[in-house]
Amino acid sequence: MRFEVEFSDPSSQARAGKLHTDHGVIETPIFMPVGTAGTVKAVHQRELAEDVKASIILGNSYHLYLRPGLEILQKAGGLHAFNGWDRPILTDSGGYQVYSLAENRKITEEGVHFRSHIDGSAHFFTPEKAIDIQRVIGADIIMAFDECTPYPCEYDYAKKSMELTHRWLDRCISHFHQHSELYGHKQYLFPIVQGSTFPDLRRISAEEVAQRDQPGNAIGGLSVGEPHEEMYEMTEIVCSILPKEKPRYLMGVGTPENILESISLGIDMFDCVMPTRNARNGMLFTSEGIINIRNEKWKDDFSPIDEGIEGYASNFYSKAYLRHLIISKEILGAQIASIHNLTFYLWLVKTARTMIKNGTFIAWKNNMMEKIKRKL
Amino acid sequence: MRFEVEFSDPSSQARAGKLHTDHGVIETPIFMPVGTAGTVKAVHQRELAEDVKASIILGNSYHLYLRPGLEILQKAGGLHAFNGWDRPILTDSGGYQVYSLAENRKITEEGVHFRSHIDGSAHFFTPEKAIDIQRVIGADIIMAFDECTPYPCEYDYAKKSMELTHRWLDRCISHFHQHSELYGHKQYLFPIVQGSTFPDLRRISAEEVAQRDQPGNAIGGLSVGEPHEEMYEMTEIVCSILPKEKPRYLMGVGTPENILESISLGIDMFDCVMPTRNARNGMLFTSEGIINIRNEKWKDDFSPIDEGIEGYASNFYSKAYLRHLIISKEILGAQIASIHNLTFYLWLVKTARTMIKNGTFIAWKNNMMEKIKRKL
Repeated sequence: MRFEVEFSDPSSQARAGKLHTDHGVIETPIFMPVGTAGTVKAVHQRELAEDVKASIILGNSYHLYLRPGLEILQKAGGLHAFNGWDRPILTDSGGYQVYSLAENRKITEEGVHFRSHIDGSAHFFTPEKAIDIQRVIGADIIMAFDECTPYPCEYDYAKKSMELTHRWLDRCISHFHQHSELYGHKQYLFPIVQGSTFPDLRRISAEEVAQRDQPGNAIGGLSVGEPHEEMYEMTEIVCSILPKEKPRYLMGVGTPENILESISLGIDMFDCVMPTRNARNGMLFTSEGIINIRNEKWKDDFSPIDEGIEGYASNFYSKAYLRHLIISKEILGAQIASIHNLTFYLWLVKTARTMIKNGTFIAWKNNMMEKIKRKL
Repeated sequence: MRFEVEFSDPSSQARAGKLHTDHGVIETPIFMPVGTAGTVKAVHQRELAEDVKASIILGNSYHLYLRPGLEILQKAGGLHAFNGWDRPILTDSGGYQVYSLAENRKITEEGVHFRSHIDGSAHFFTPEKAIDIQRVIGADIIMAFDECTPYPCEYDYAKKSMELTHRWLDRCISHFHQHSELYGHKQYLFPIVQGSTFPDLRRISAEEVAQRDQPGNAIGGLSVGEPHEEMYEMTEIVCSILPKEKPRYLMGVGTPENILESISLGIDMFDCVMPTRNARNGMLFTSEGIINIRNEKWKDDFSPIDEGIEGYASNFYSKAYLRHLIISKEILGAQIASIHNLTFYLWLVKTARTMIKNGTFIAWKNNMMEKIKRKL
């Protein structure tokens, strides 16, 4: 997998790069909208490409495995063919959802037994199974099967869990190489660094992961409830060990602030449900700050949602209209807010990239941080 | 209000016309998507214009009066400014929703007392109030305040109700002329023919309405549960009396079959929640017949939703993908199905118009009727 670091910020670890896949080039740093069940909730594929300007989206193996199921996905020719998204896709391994959503979970050396949150049916995921599932889904980037520890986590459990994740990683890599792609385009496997919030475990895990020499690397088990300072500390430690010439993906992160801060620590890729989930609840991220659109103060504010960025939803619809839709529980409210928030996230990482290229990243970031975290 | 009948079908009462408003020309026969609370559910304004190719949409006075309320709508400069739809809008008078949705309804000569279905607050609608509300909403075509009788309905009640509707009509017309437009563009008032399913009452009502010499006329109180044959019979009677040189609007109708049949009886305008409401439940109207997309048989049908019509949603997404979204209760499922159904409805009336112009309407209609009512 070709990854070029084009520019490195002299005042931080931030970098601007290009990641090449068979479905297109991804300019980094990048935010990847989450398309849980093969759809980024409330957003058309055309809107994702043309309005949000997403260059890669996520799919969730756990959800796709349960519905529509592997038989349908394989018959369709993979997720790209199934949902019509022809740019890159990344899938998680299903691990995180098994821990956060599934029922009657039981972890063994071999894998994880669980029951579907939809119909209670029994399933068993192993590292090998997670690879098989992701071969069928056919994402461009696929993730190793790991255990994601909760926060807080006892040191002993975190250590044992991390070691299990490393053993599972070797099984993933081995299985990955024994079974090839199904649809003609290349797939790349990213391992995941674990170790909870313990610096020594994070160092060990980063070194183990780096040694596997995979095409890109991810950091998991963060943004699960720990203070932001701990998340940044772990990210900094891990980034200092993971190879510079490979893309680094911080899983499940986060707020606009988290993203800018983590870019400065050397992260290239992000995903998070926050822009879409919060949108459905009426929380907007804008270039001027955070808006709770349900607030009375927006009821007669007929100005566009966000004039500071370009985009149909952000510029065409007014705050007062969006407030009316969200208060009235109209589907269009979720649609507008979701497109807007994603457009803002993609604008944010694209602007960060431009600033890195211009050598003005840190000054811009310090300025943006003040704006994006204030409540309007 | 300028309305030109451009072509009249020699074998039926069908006609093709053009209706001129300050927000644009409406080619008839036309179907008007229902935008209850200032939004056609699950469809962006841009999609309505560019994909669905709607030339006019509806707003509901009852819903808009309750939310966002008249103060906000007036501050915005009317509904067009509020929701950004710059083509024609028609609003109903609120009468139908007061009867079907509101609570503690009490009808007097003066008007209707009711309680909001949202918060139980007490309100009082009169013919004058209905006009005032519609002046504030600012639709291009506004409707007289009527009583819509249920089906079945006793003859005596239907007669008394119809007479009340006629007295209310005169109050509407008088009030309409005493208060002018608020936003610079012209508004036109359409009276409504009532009379339940009684031919003599329908004749009386049509004559009363015709005498008022308003710019267009509507038929209410149909499609409320009566057999289709009775609906067609009433429509035929009323159309034989209403002036040919003015547009005729059959309120709340209906299925694709109902629309083609009613076009042949001389109707020019239609509205119905069916294409959007049924879409959200997974029922699709297509050029080949009716699809219940939840049905197992579509699970691996990767062909487009409808290749017989042109449109993003209909051509881009597959039946199997839409089935997955609807089964998974994903918002995008409601979005795709809504755009598709509306695109089909607009395609149907546009094609009917072309056939009327070509003098081939009846042959085409007979052929289409077989297709559009069959279950696939």
